[in-house]
Amino acid sequence: MNNTGQLAVLGDEHMAPSISQQLAAAGYTVAHELSSTNIFDAVIIAVEDFSAVQRLLGSVLSEHALPSIVLIRSATSEDVSRVLEAGANYCLCYPLESFFVLEQIIKQSVIQWRRFNELQTMNEKLQRGVALLQRDQQAGHQVQLSMLPPQSARLAGFDFSYQLIPSLYISGDFVDYFSVGSSHSVFFIADVSGHGVAPGFCTVLLKKLFARAHARFCERGDLAILSPASMLRLANEELLSINTDQYATMVVGVVDNDKRTLTYSIAGHLPLPVLFDGSQASYLSGEGAPVGLMANVNHQEYHVTLSAGASLALFSDGILEVLEQDSLLKKEDALLALFSQFAGRGEALLRKLGVCEGLSAPDDVTALFMESVN
Amino acid sequence: MNNTGQLAVLGDEHMAPSISQQLAAAGYTVAHELSSTNIFDAVIIAVEDFSAVQRLLGSVLSEHALPSIVLIRSATSEDVSRVLEAGANYCLCYPLESFFVLEQIIKQSVIQWRRFNELQTMNEKLQRGVALLQRDQQAGHQVQLSMLPPQSARLAGFDFSYQLIPSLYISGDFVDYFSVGSSHSVFFIADVSGHGVAPGFCTVLLKKLFARAHARFCERGDLAILSPASMLRLANEELLSINTDQYATMVVGVVDNDKRTLTYSIAGHLPLPVLFDGSQASYLSGEGAPVGLMANVNHQEYHVTLSAGASLALFSDGILEVLEQDSLLKKEDALLALFSQFAGRGEALLRKLGVCEGLSAPDDVTALFMESVN
Repeated sequence: MNNTGQLAVLGDEHMAPSISQQLAAAGYTVAHELSSTNIFDAVIIAVEDFSAVQRLLGSVLSEHALPSIVLIRSATSEDVSRVLEAGANYCLCYPLESFFVLEQIIKQSVIQWRRFNELQTMNEKLQRGVALLQRDQQAGHQVQLSMLPPQSARLAGFDFSYQLIPSLYISGDFVDYFSVGSSHSVFFIADVSGHGVAPGFCTVLLKKLFARAHARFCERGDLAILSPASMLRLANEELLSINTDQYATMVVGVVDNDKRTLTYSIAGHLPLPVLFDGSQASYLSGEGAPVGLMANVNHQEYHVTLSAGASLALFSDGILEVLEQDSLLKKEDALLALFSQFAGRGEALLRKLGVCEGLSAPDDVTALFMESVN
Repeated sequence: MNNTGQLAVLGDEHMAPSISQQLAAAGYTVAHELSSTNIFDAVIIAVEDFSAVQRLLGSVLSEHALPSIVLIRSATSEDVSRVLEAGANYCLCYPLESFFVLEQIIKQSVIQWRRFNELQTMNEKLQRGVALLQRDQQAGHQVQLSMLPPQSARLAGFDFSYQLIPSLYISGDFVDYFSVGSSHSVFFIADVSGHGVAPGFCTVLLKKLFARAHARFCERGDLAILSPASMLRLANEELLSINTDQYATMVVGVVDNDKRTLTYSIAGHLPLPVLFDGSQASYLSGEGAPVGLMANVNHQEYHVTLSAGASLALFSDGILEVLEQDSLLKKEDALLALFSQFAGRGEALLRKLGVCEGLSAPDDVTALFMESVN
């Protein structure tokens, strides 16, 4: 490719040669037809009248989309308008009043055309790059989705449901709930530090940890799955066993369906679970270190009775970024007030907050609801 | 923003107003200074001589990078050259021979400028998108790296080493090796279907599966970790327990360091392991279904004696795409010939094949070597 520019000069046999000669002298490489093998930077069409423009311009615009400069002998202002309307970039009068204006127009056309093509090429490359990574993450997202529990499930006297909105594709938040034996339901919410693929790996570990403990209960009556503190101890060991700085905040709960009691443990999780006792909502008390930070942490187990009409909500801290209030305290108060209003109607609560598919948030946002069956 | 274009007309108080008037009549919005609050599409500088151009053009180019059209009264060809050299896009002679040429130049400048800016904005957005996804995948890659064994390790009489080149960031290939008790070494190679984040999740499960079996051996003498067939049964259950269509081909091996024997099982893995017995290389025999495809598959265990100077190589099928031969059979023959030549020098073998950091391959490429300590 010529550095100055590769031009095609088409048109009238009396006009084109002289223009070609001048452009060649100015350093351009000039051809007299638009072959598909050459890469052109601009086309100059030099003709006697408008009828010849139409024929030549049509192929330039449809097949090559090149910058086009038309020269018409003794062009009237009507000619100029018609040529520009037909899609030419420029229409000048021939003979030229000054060759240096044509030269400037050609030079800038070539520069802009090349700059545009470069950007366009880079753009297409970037689009392919994004698409490749997105496809990859989408596939990972599908695997993660397959590990989540059913969107809603009735376990003994409670309806469990959740909403999980990853900020990217793979979530560092995770939830699960399932029946254990005939009289217990177990649930947890986990929020692994960061978001995306790295914490996503840890959610897989936590999912399987609970699944294995559940299997051990079924196979040989191992009771760890019914002890939130034991499960947090195992989760702590599991996350520590991978040599990364990933840690997680968690809430693990076990519901005794016969006694209608909830046993739970907290691993550094905020906001705390919200319990609606049938008349008012309050944060459950409790504390404990996140899991995956240090060895040998012990978590306390807390117990509450679940009255008729009780419902429980657990959120990842991403919910705090969705709330509009300007301080953590105000956000927590707002969440409490909302849950009093929407207790038992978790889906409506999330709709009110705009937490639904398509939400664009800086962090993963997750809610887990346990609502008394009416 | 004016649809036709937002122009700044600067310069001489005798020339600028008349030009502004004509441009306003042509539909442009015209300002007489470059404020930073307005978004301009082009600047017209109309002046008496070159000295005034320099001052005005400097700020246009340095602060605004806008298309610039300079009009100089009775411009000489020397003036034109100097103005263009100073960085203006166009320099025309004033009074204009034809206003319609200036109008065309402005129109095209505005169109190109806007088109360029649009592409540029889209480009920057795409670049941020790629960077975000890349950072995310890099973080995931780090977690996966942290689960891989040390790059090389001496276990009893053998040096173990590996090379794993993901085709994207997260690998669907995985390897591990470790001592079990005082007299055994265990290793495996796994190639989960596909590549990227989705199979990456499965490699985490396989890593932890072997780690748990190892822990059970240490804690209570559970011998599953010393039985390749048992480990493949567990791996099969593990992958089936997640509801995706992910499956893996694997080779699991257990070396008895006292007896210098190798027990191994094959789960649909190709190429088969290559054993160099001290004098020649051959593929180990064996077959078995991949894991994660169907329940209740049984894998056979095979035994070989490891002679002095023996070395073993395991590859993921990505290696076959690196080899140049045009059929699977020829590729397998070539790999065998190479391993005969480079037995005990796995690193040199990979260098010969170009398998090193920075390799760009359509699939993950992994090699695991076990080489007699000299």
